[in-house]
Amino acid sequence: MADEENAYTFTTTATRQVRLGNLPEGGMPMWRGGRLPEVTLAYESWGELNAAANNAILIFTGLSPSAHAASSTEDPSPGWWEYMIGSGKAIDTDRFFVVCANSLGGCYGSTGPGSIDPETGQSYGADFPDVTVEDIASSGYYLMRELGVEKLHAAVGSSMGGMSSIAYAMKYPGEIAYLVSISAATQALPLTIALRSLQREIIRSDPAWNEGRYTDDNRPLVGMSLARKLGLVSYRAADEWNSKFDRSRMPPEKLTGKRFEREFEIENYLEYNAQKFIHSFDPNSYLYLSRAMDWFDIAEHGDSISDGMSKIDVKKALVVGVTTDILFPSRQQKEIADVMRATGTEVDYVEIDSVNGHDAFLIDDEHFSPVVKNFLNESVA
Amino acid sequence: MADEENAYTFTTTATRQVRLGNLPEGGMPMWRGGRLPEVTLAYESWGELNAAANNAILIFTGLSPSAHAASSTEDPSPGWWEYMIGSGKAIDTDRFFVVCANSLGGCYGSTGPGSIDPETGQSYGADFPDVTVEDIASSGYYLMRELGVEKLHAAVGSSMGGMSSIAYAMKYPGEIAYLVSISAATQALPLTIALRSLQREIIRSDPAWNEGRYTDDNRPLVGMSLARKLGLVSYRAADEWNSKFDRSRMPPEKLTGKRFEREFEIENYLEYNAQKFIHSFDPNSYLYLSRAMDWFDIAEHGDSISDGMSKIDVKKALVVGVTTDILFPSRQQKEIADVMRATGTEVDYVEIDSVNGHDAFLIDDEHFSPVVKNFLNESVA
Repeated sequence: MADEENAYTFTTTATRQVRLGNLPEGGMPMWRGGRLPEVTLAYESWGELNAAANNAILIFTGLSPSAHAASSTEDPSPGWWEYMIGSGKAIDTDRFFVVCANSLGGCYGSTGPGSIDPETGQSYGADFPDVTVEDIASSGYYLMRELGVEKLHAAVGSSMGGMSSIAYAMKYPGEIAYLVSISAATQALPLTIALRSLQREIIRSDPAWNEGRYTDDNRPLVGMSLARKLGLVSYRAADEWNSKFDRSRMPPEKLTGKRFEREFEIENYLEYNAQKFIHSFDPNSYLYLSRAMDWFDIAEHGDSISDGMSKIDVKKALVVGVTTDILFPSRQQKEIADVMRATGTEVDYVEIDSVNGHDAFLIDDEHFSPVVKNFLNESVA
Repeated sequence: MADEENAYTFTTTATRQVRLGNLPEGGMPMWRGGRLPEVTLAYESWGELNAAANNAILIFTGLSPSAHAASSTEDPSPGWWEYMIGSGKAIDTDRFFVVCANSLGGCYGSTGPGSIDPETGQSYGADFPDVTVEDIASSGYYLMRELGVEKLHAAVGSSMGGMSSIAYAMKYPGEIAYLVSISAATQALPLTIALRSLQREIIRSDPAWNEGRYTDDNRPLVGMSLARKLGLVSYRAADEWNSKFDRSRMPPEKLTGKRFEREFEIENYLEYNAQKFIHSFDPNSYLYLSRAMDWFDIAEHGDSISDGMSKIDVKKALVVGVTTDILFPSRQQKEIADVMRATGTEVDYVEIDSVNGHDAFLIDDEHFSPVVKNFLNESVA
């Protein structure tokens, strides 16, 4: 997939793009129907696959990250999970062959709504088929086979990535030895659906969205900015912001003096972060992946959540929750752990007391590294 | 103020509109500067003022309610606090003369951005002066004097109304005997500012807003709908929605089949409630009153929150919080109670374990009525 096919394609010198050559006849079947005739995944990897091909760890991302989870000699810039992945770190690249792919449906080099539909020669836009967490898991499965891995040592993911790692374990029982799910959910609940639905409606309400047929010079940036701000509000926790911003005002030289304009530092912070995001993320990818999380429901893998969970066949799972997460609250992590145990999976459940809310896994090295390191060390002990 | 001056003016047969005739020379001075040359307040009342004029209770509203807090013979339709106000109810109209005004800056009959500026003959729009909680308190003060009340038996308010009742007590020490603050705050904190700022930016981003100069046939209804949905999400609590909606889908006949459209009942619920709201509420009033809450800070009444609070001179205060309130969390209610006590005010503090979040005071008759009834009974014992 060449850059000109997708204005948002973001790959680094370390990113490889592989067209999955091992898909079933007719392309990759999608969980909610339809097929993708061609699937390219952008991925980066760290460490070496051993001769037995049994040291591979696949990392599934949340909604927005690229495959660049960590730096490497090919690309020394810090990745989005830099503290977690590397030589001697919790996910130890001296020991493991670590792979992170940009999600199917994303915009950082993997096939998504910004890609060209080979059947029409046009970009898919909102004609891309429904993307689910299960499809993201499947594309990871085909990628790992492409890379010579039959069975994963571990699947690791946070947020949407945690759902993806659970979906992998349910769809491919016995093909994964260890499972790590951080701040995920057995199913999306109304508050979370409401928050994401509202983000999507904000984007779709921007006239520039144009039913998904926006052009490079007229993109729904206003809608994306507002949606991203709402996302950010839901990812963080009140107490963190109280101590960071309190009621600080912006410096006078930054005020426009116009009524209702930004005046508090918290408003400035959201604006800064939204602007950083919107020029690099494809609005349609945001819509597809956001909806995928609403649909995720382990109960669809059987008669009930328990029945779905009972398909899992791993040696052990690590389930992690964060006390201040309002989006994927710790009680939902506890539920994952409890149902796994009730259906025969050995589970380490850890509740982390972090101030960073849902985003804690991206930030809180101090709390997260020891938990993941300990689990993976034991997995090879 | 005639109806044609404000497309949103909503008054019932029980609503009276009074032009405040006792303002200082030049009009009502505003807390953040400027003056309003003329102020009209729309109010309703229940019960009779006694001969000593010492049985008056003033109810301050949250952001959106009208003066129609309860039914009466003049207007038998249920008011927004119907369970609380009436003969034999917690706020007993057999005993008290109860007044509720539409907030200054509102759109249900009181002077606000939709009103005509007597100096220009045009509606104020976004040229209305900044409105603060203190101004809402002051307009209530002038209204009660107009009605023959020198000293309130009680000021009662929830959410913005709770802030207004505290502001009243600070601005007019000794002129209020009992104070009731429900789900308010000593000052707005970053998460709350962020959530409200985002609602305002969503409205202002609707091209129809037009810097506040929208017309009746082209109003920012899309922005208002999205903002209202975000407001609703922040007013309620996750567990209430889990039990009410879970993952229920809309009936097939209501689905459009278009990608990303509403599909879950929670999405349908938000749409229904937003549509009910947006045709009756003035976007500029929403912006002004929303910003007023961001600005509210008891520390502006002195050198600190304690110093501001120390100005209060009431016989007793009732402070109420709700366990599931994410917008005005119960720890902020506890803070109000603690600081009041530390500065010499006798306080009853009650934390209500309700599933209804910030909106609990509007819904949870069972928990709220006994608490308010008990406090007011004791106040006249």
